[in-house]
Formats: sequence, C-alpha cells, structure tokens
Amino acid sequence: MAEALVSKYVQSQLRALNGALINGQFVSVRKLLLELPPSDVAHILESSPSRTRDELWELIDGDFHGDILEELSDDVRNGIITKMLPANVVDALEEMDTDDLAVTLSSLPEPVLQDILDSMDAQDRLRAEQALSYGEETAGFIMNTDTITLRPDVTIDVVLRYIRLKGELPENTDTFYVVNRTDNLVGIVPVTRLLTAETEAKVSDVMDEESEAIPVHMPDDEVASLFERYNWLSAPVVDEKHRLVGRITIDDVVDIIREDAEHSMMSMAGLDDDEDTFAPVLQSTKRRSVWLAVNLVTALMAAMVSDLFEATLSQLAVLAILNTIVPSMGGVAGNQTLTLVIRGMALGHVNANNSRWLISKEISIGFLNGAIWAILIASVIALWKQDYMLGIIIAFAMLVNMIAAAMAGATLPLIMKRLKIDPALAGSVILTTITDVVGIFAFLGTATLFLM
Amino acid sequence: MAEALVSKYVQSQLRALNGALINGQFVSVRKLLLELPPSDVAHILESSPSRTRDELWELIDGDFHGDILEELSDDVRNGIITKMLPANVVDALEEMDTDDLAVTLSSLPEPVLQDILDSMDAQDRLRAEQALSYGEETAGFIMNTDTITLRPDVTIDVVLRYIRLKGELPENTDTFYVVNRTDNLVGIVPVTRLLTAETEAKVSDVMDEESEAIPVHMPDDEVASLFERYNWLSAPVVDEKHRLVGRITIDDVVDIIREDAEHSMMSMAGLDDDEDTFAPVLQSTKRRSVWLAVNLVTALMAAMVSDLFEATLSQLAVLAILNTIVPSMGGVAGNQTLTLVIRGMALGHVNANNSRWLISKEISIGFLNGAIWAILIASVIALWKQDYMLGIIIAFAMLVNMIAAAMAGATLPLIMKRLKIDPALAGSVILTTITDVVGIFAFLGTATLFLM
Repeated sequence: MAEALVSKYVQSQLRALNGALINGQFVSVRKLLLELPPSDVAHILESSPSRTRDELWELIDGDFHGDILEELSDDVRNGIITKMLPANVVDALEEMDTDDLAVTLSSLPEPVLQDILDSMDAQDRLRAEQALSYGEETAGFIMNTDTITLRPDVTIDVVLRYIRLKGELPENTDTFYVVNRTDNLVGIVPVTRLLTAETEAKVSDVMDEESEAIPVHMPDDEVASLFERYNWLSAPVVDEKHRLVGRITIDDVVDIIREDAEHSMMSMAGLDDDEDTFAPVLQSTKRRSVWLAVNLVTALMAAMVSDLFEATLSQLAVLAILNTIVPSMGGVAGNQTLTLVIRGMALGHVNANNSRWLISKEISIGFLNGAIWAILIASVIALWKQDYMLGIIIAFAMLVNMIAAAMAGATLPLIMKRLKIDPALAGSVILTTITDVVGIFAFLGTATLFLM
Repeated sequence: MAEALVSKYVQSQLRALNGALINGQFVSVRKLLLELPPSDVAHILESSPSRTRDELWELIDGDFHGDILEELSDDVRNGIITKMLPANVVDALEEMDTDDLAVTLSSLPEPVLQDILDSMDAQDRLRAEQALSYGEETAGFIMNTDTITLRPDVTIDVVLRYIRLKGELPENTDTFYVVNRTDNLVGIVPVTRLLTAETEAKVSDVMDEESEAIPVHMPDDEVASLFERYNWLSAPVVDEKHRLVGRITIDDVVDIIREDAEHSMMSMAGLDDDEDTFAPVLQSTKRRSVWLAVNLVTALMAAMVSDLFEATLSQLAVLAILNTIVPSMGGVAGNQTLTLVIRGMALGHVNANNSRWLISKEISIGFLNGAIWAILIASVIALWKQDYMLGIIIAFAMLVNMIAAAMAGATLPLIMKRLKIDPALAGSVILTTITDVVGIFAFLGTATLFLM
C-alpha cells in the first residue's frame, strides 16, 4: 500500500481543492493547480470522480495539458481527450515526446483519433504517423528518437567540446551511441566514461562494443524483462539492418512492468486492466458484465450437473446441504496452482523443459492436499451428521476433485498459451467450471451409488 | 507473457545443461555455466526443479556465488544458502553491495543467519550489522552507500580532474551529491551537467538546490511510488538531520514495483508472494494449506446456513439444484469491486475524500448488475423449470446478493486498512463468506416463505 510523503501533501492539496471547488472558489483552485507538478495534478485527476475531473480540467492552464495528459492512465486520458476540442488536443500533443505521443494516440477510439489527425497541420500529422508506425506494444512504440550519436574515430576531447557547445542534453541521457557512416550501431559510451576517459583517446578506444541492442519489433514485455534481468537503465533500439533508430529508457519500462504485473491480477478478477476506479456507473457496469455473463453460464452448468441427481437430492436433503463444500475446496486449490503457473510463465521460469516436472509436482500436492482435507472433512461430517458412510463419500469426492483441480490448474495455462489465449483472462473461469462439475459429479454420483 | 530473445537463448542453454546433467557430463555443465552472465544462471536456477538446482549449484564456480545469489528470489536463495557451509556463504557475501547484503541476510531463517554471522570476521560482521541496522522494507534497507559527494565551493574543473583521477565510478552513477561540512545534503549535480557546465563555474552555481531527498526510514513502497510518479533514476537518502547517508537507484526500485504488484495477485489466490514455483512438494503443500483451511471453515459456514433450511430442501430438490447460482454470481461481482478498490488503494487513488463517492458508485453498479442478472436468471429458470414463482424468488435473491457483494467489496478493503490488515490477504475470503451466506439465506429464506 503506497501512501507516500508526497501523497499526504497531495491529499491535503486535494482537500483544499475540493473545498475550493465546492465553494466555487475557482480562482484559488486554478492557483492551487498551477503550483503542483504535472504528475501530481495527474494523480489528483485520477483520484477524482468523473464530474469533479471535468471541472478540474477546465481550470488547468492549457500550457500544461500535454504534460499532464502523458502522466494519466489510458482510460482517464481518453475520457478527457474525447471531451476536448480537437484543436486544443493538437496543441497539447505538440510538446510530447514521440513515445508518449504514440501511447496517447493509439489508445484513442478511432473516430476521435481521426478528428484529431484532421485538425493537425502537415508537419504534426507526419510526426503523429511516424509515432504510430510501429505496432502497439513493441520496442519501436515505446522508444524515444532523441539519441546522441558519436563517430568512432573522433577523440573524447572533441566529443566533450561538442557537448559543451550543445548545452542541454535530452532527458535521462546516460549513454551515447556510436554509429558508423551507414548509421549502424557499433558501440556505446556511458556518460560517466566521458568523465574518466583520457581526453586524447578515440571514441572507438573507450566504447563498449558488445552492447545488446533491442530489435525495433520486439514486444514491449520482452523489452521489460530484459531491462529487469540485466538491470539496464537504457538500451539502444535498432532496425532489421542494425541501424540505430532510437533508445528506450527505464522510466518507460517501469510503466510496462507495473502494467504487466497488474494485468494478471485484474484479468483474473474479470476486470479490464485499465479500468478507471472512478469511471461513471454505466461504463463500469457494461465492462464488468461480460465476466458475470460467463460466470452465469458456468453456474448454470453446475446446476445442470446437480439436476442429473434430482432424485437423489429429493430423498437426501443432507446432500444438498453439503453439495458446495467439495467444489469450493477444489476451486481454491486449483486457483492456487493456476496463479502460480501463470506467474511462473510471466517470469519466464516455466518452459518446455520443466513443465512436465511442474505438472507432476502440482498433482502430488493435489493428492496430498486431497488426502489431508478428505480425512478432515470426513471426520467433521461424520461427527456433525452422525453418518460415517456420508463422511467416506465426501472424502472420496474431495480427493478426486483436489487431484482434478491440480491437473487443471497446472495444464490449463500451458494449453491456453499454446492456443495463444491469455491464461489470466479465462483460466480462472474455465478452472472453476471444471472443479464445480467434477466436484458435484464425484460427490452426488458416489452418494447415488452407495446411499440409494 | 515475457519470453525474451534472451530467454530463448537461455532455454537452449538450459536444454544443453539438462542433457549434460542427465548424461553426467559435469565438465560441460561447468563450462556452460561459466559462459553465462550471473543473471542468466540465476534465471536457470529459478527455472529448475529443486534437485536439479542443488546439482547445478555444486557445479558453479565459487567466485560467482555472490553475483548469482543477489539475483535470486528470496525463497530460492534461502534454499541454497541453507545448504551451503557458513564459511562459503561468508565468502560469497563479501563482494555484495550493502543493499543486496541486507536483502540476502534479512530473509534468512534466524538460526542460519546466526551461523553465518558467527563465521564472519569482525570487519565483515560490522558491515553485515550495518546493512541490517535499518528496518526491513525501508529506504535505508534498499539504499547503497557508494555515493560520490562534492563540496559546493570547488570549481567544475577541479571536480572533473578529481573524477578523471579516480578512474572508475560506482555502478549506475547518474548524479553527484553536494554536501556541506556537516554532511548535510545541499544540492545535486546530474552527471550530464558536468559535461555541459562552464569549467570555471563553481559546483554551487550549477547544482539543483531543490532536489527531493528520501528520509532513511521511509517504507520502500512509498519510495517506489515516488520513483514511479516523478520518473526518477536515482535519489539521495538522508537521515533525520538531513545528512546524506546513501542513494537509491531505479534498478532496486524496479524489483519493489514488481513485487508490490505481484503481492496482491498472489495474496488474493492464497499464495505466499515469494512462493518458489519449483519448491519441493511438502513445502508447497504446507504453505498452501492455511488458505484451504480457512476456505473449509467458510464452506462449512455456508453449509450450516443451508442446514437451517433442511426442511425446505427436503421437500423441494429444485432449490438444492439452484442453490449455488446466487452465491456464485455474488462472489464474482464482489471480487471485481474488491480487486478494483485494492488496486486503487495501492496506487494511492482511494482516500478519505473520495471513498464515500466510490462506495456509492459501486453500490449503484451492484444494483444495476443485480437488476440485469435478476431478470435474466428469472427468465432462464422460469423457462427451464416451468415455474414463474421460482424465477421471481431467485431474481429477488440475486438482486439482494449483488448489492451486498458491492457493499462488501467496496467497504472491506477500507475497513481492513483501518484495522491494519492487508486487504489482499484476507479480503477475498471474507467477501466470499459474506456473498455465500447472504446468497443462500436470501434464496432459501425467500423460497421457504413463499413456496412452503
């Protein structure tokens, strides 16, 4: 739970803002907003109900619109842009880096994007089209094009003088890239190296030749895992011919890491990754209904399985009472396995070499867990309902369902990945269907065989 | 799903390693391991079943033990260290940075840690105790102490000559810190600034005075959210008297961001954050049983609610068949709300100012969803079971339970946070208990009133 120092400051600002808004003191709201850095204003907008958000946006100085928009999450940003005049959006986008521009434009609904492109002059449109030219979620999409390149045959002294002449360096510059006459990347020189190198040395003498370069079409989650694994701060991006086309910096990667990790959690709960906490009621209702519809179908399927045993249930009400225990335990155990395997796959730990080992490990755990909870539930039921046979039946069903849960939890993500379906998205609902059906079938089926 | 270029390379290495291991070609295994960077060896160890992991560790050159240990996740690292001789562990720890040392030592079980500290000489023990002197999960714990400090009154020229003389700079140095005679932080100078500044200027002329410093006792998740919000690459750490004590770099923060985001997902599925995908069966069974035990209790509670209506159930088996639909829908809807609020809290978006708005928004969604699915399920049941009254009863129960689910999902995390309980850990199980009990009670209770 993050609640930083700054967050407390933002909270008091938010309270001041709210007070000023409610009392209609728009002048002080405007003043309060001007004093905050864009990332804090973005945070306040994201923490506000949609109506307050619109009011606040009206009071923000247009000069800061671009800086604030690039800090917002997709959903919130789209909501704001859709309500802006296309000409104002164009103004706000003018100052954005190519990577932020690409992210902003690509997440907009098609008609809104078209309106904005139509309002641009030729130069801006070209820049926008370039930003959008790489596929979404690729290295090209998140890269920046403001690299500083050096030639291998110049001396450090010349480089230092050139940089001093240039004055300001692009934000987060930690590396200079060395390219030959055809723009091919031949090495890198960390900024700190320029400070420690002999001034008479040539760039080629001090550069690292074996630097890793990211292909421009690499998916962004692969980029993120490279950054994470090798603790990079930035990396050059090259095209098919190994020509330098841009650089990716860690601050863009951090967003991807956060989003990737959140994606599984949100998907498994049947939510859109990007769902805005403060979205309007109708929008949220619509988004969440897909998952509820799927769940209704699986709940009806479970009911149909029970329906097969109507004769048994009508004679033994006790079975109806206990009917939910076995499916529920299977669901929890199966979801544990499923979550573990999904995370292992996301971290790149699960692969063809070890998946068989992993499946058999999870089945062993399922068997052990099944045995433990079978004995326990049998004792509880035998004591509660004074019926040993019933205890044995529920124990058997529990064992069967726990093993089924482990098998489903371990194999489903692997199968879904092969079918190119996101396991986080539908894995949990398929798993629950399996554990419900197997659990009910095992319990009521065995009971019908032995008690009727 | 991350499966990087490098990962494919690692996979082929892993296959080669596996083959060599199985055939007992330990010489080639040793050679393969020497050729890989430590982060890749760590990745291979994390992707291996526990027995293979032990065999591989034996074959790794002792000189690389430290570099590899610091790349491993807590669980895997602890498993390896526990099996090593304390003297070998001490050797491996010697080269580690203070932040990695702190993380490694603090996660060890107490007796193992004691054995290792006992095997250290006085100097190493002092270093270890210093690393452990800040509380776990604080800024002091994850900081590095290898800062480069400058005095405000020297010229850039002197600084440049000093650095050139020094030769190598610490890893990931992007900023120099300016301190006065009493070590108080008075400003920062980005490395790039040294390249562009006039050489005759003084440090105090070019430094940024208004830099943010992190208090040494700040919780690490707050540090992470500051880095994320302001796109920092590094930040100075100061003690209570604003004296510079170290620096935190983004690569350490990336791990915290990933772990924080994963924490909610793993906790909500009843797993330990750090659970090793390839842990031995018994260890995993033990860890997961807590959650299963809790679930068994809630499943029994739901059964007891059904038990209250035994008379009704024994007369109307159809109720037994449909008894799971309402609780199941409530569970899904409630978990959507719960997950959204937990994420909103983690991002710092949910606070005292907007929580009431959020709760009423979620209840509105619950009401709307309840109405939609009530009408749908009523139609399905009326058609399937040819019983309109039954349809109306299940619709009523659905509406009641969806509203209860929304209320529970929105308020539980806020209440638990106030009670200082982690909502991700127990929120989901409490929620499901509520939706089960309310759902069964509403359905069977209404049915008893109107059908009996």
